[in-house]
Amino acid sequence: MTKPCIICVAITGSVPRTADNPAVPVTIEQQIESTQAAHEAGAAICHAHVRDENETPTSDPDRFARLMEGLRRHCPDMIIQLSTGGRSGAGKERGGMLPLRPEMASLSVGSNNFPTRVYENPPDLVDWLAAEMRHHDVMPEIEAFDLSHIFKAAEMNGDGRIRGNAYVQFVMGVKNAMPADSRVFDIYVETMARLLPNSEWCAAGIGRHQLEVNEWSVSAGGHART
Amino acid sequence: MTKPCIICVAITGSVPRTADNPAVPVTIEQQIESTQAAHEAGAAICHAHVRDENETPTSDPDRFARLMEGLRRHCPDMIIQLSTGGRSGAGKERGGMLPLRPEMASLSVGSNNFPTRVYENPPDLVDWLAAEMRHHDVMPEIEAFDLSHIFKAAEMNGDGRIRGNAYVQFVMGVKNAMPADSRVFDIYVETMARLLPNSEWCAAGIGRHQLEVNEWSVSAGGHART
Ligand SMILES: [Zn+2]
Ligand SMILES: [Zn+2]
Ligand SMILES: [Zn+2]
Ligand SMILES: [Zn+2]
Repeated sequence: MTKPCIICVAITGSVPRTADNPAVPVTIEQQIESTQAAHEAGAAICHAHVRDENETPTSDPDRFARLMEGLRRHCPDMIIQLSTGGRSGAGKERGGMLPLRPEMASLSVGSNNFPTRVYENPPDLVDWLAAEMRHHDVMPEIEAFDLSHIFKAAEMNGDGRIRGNAYVQFVMGVKNAMPADSRVFDIYVETMARLLPNSEWCAAGIGRHQLEVNEWSVSAGGHART
Repeated sequence: MTKPCIICVAITGSVPRTADNPAVPVTIEQQIESTQAAHEAGAAICHAHVRDENETPTSDPDRFARLMEGLRRHCPDMIIQLSTGGRSGAGKERGGMLPLRPEMASLSVGSNNFPTRVYENPPDLVDWLAAEMRHHDVMPEIEAFDLSHIFKAAEMNGDGRIRGNAYVQFVMGVKNAMPADSRVFDIYVETMARLLPNSEWCAAGIGRHQLEVNEWSVSAGGHART
């Protein structure tokens, strides 16, 4: 495997608060600072969520705009990937930052359970988010929380709802969704090779699974998210 | 494969109406009649939904009770499996028929997309339905719409939320969920052998995929649903 490994840093995520972990950057300024440090350490992609003044995840386009501005200034060659995930808002709110034209945005293409609730991505919302991404030239990163999500990505790539080579991230270790299981990781890689042979993929292990999943990912030729 | 093949007949399902297919039995009397015919042809399990007077799927326990009464009379040795699926009601309504103590009931353990909406099975509802089934001695048939659902079934079997040997059905070919894919079918079988080695499984191909999936199922030693 001589393919260069793209490191993708998720600076904040949508779950932890400073009360849980004082090291988590939650203000825009803290996020920019820690992204710059990660960038200097080699991270090429910044996967970003934003928080409101109560540290609650939000889809607020103004906050995303401020974050992007700071990142453009401090890490001009970094690829910015904004989250359209469902922890930060409901329905079309989740895509309100897409007109900012980040290089990438996350796109969930199916629904699944999360620790205490359903992660809802109804088919019409998936199609609308994908259309907004095409319209604003944003490359989607497909969040695969389960095997069928890779099939859905391939279907949408095949009919043009996702343009170019779909980029897929395997998310493992979220309670009530897919666990961090090395055999499933291999199955994901095999399924990508079969259905989306020209696509890149990366893998994210949540919480205590992070290092383990990164190791599988790097040794199988994928990218890593930290 | 010398294991006897259990044939499971789904007499009505929750989607088609008589306007779509006049052969679909929707009244209780029609259902009993066509189940008896299937039973004489070899079906051992009857997977049942019920409809209201407008042919709309319902979880109404009274209708389920009338259906069970008729089946007990006409097919006394048949295993009755009632649906707790989400097309027929919302929340705990879906388990309102479990006190009738059918031999089996369907249990979805995760969420996924359906053709036009999210099939919502929030974790607390899954746990409540499983508890009701334990309480009333009903054997769950786990509906696996995606790979992680087999992991969830194994987790619930391991900690006693599902007692005995979990019985799992692979559901393939529902739009926006897992397609009818023979490689995935093999992966499902492999995953069952790894995580739930003492469990039985069966497979259902939806609509035009029915015969294909039954063939895979029978040749791999599983049961078939028609
Ligand atoms: Zn990534
Ligand atoms: Zn994220
Ligand atoms: Zn069955
Ligand atoms: Zn059913």
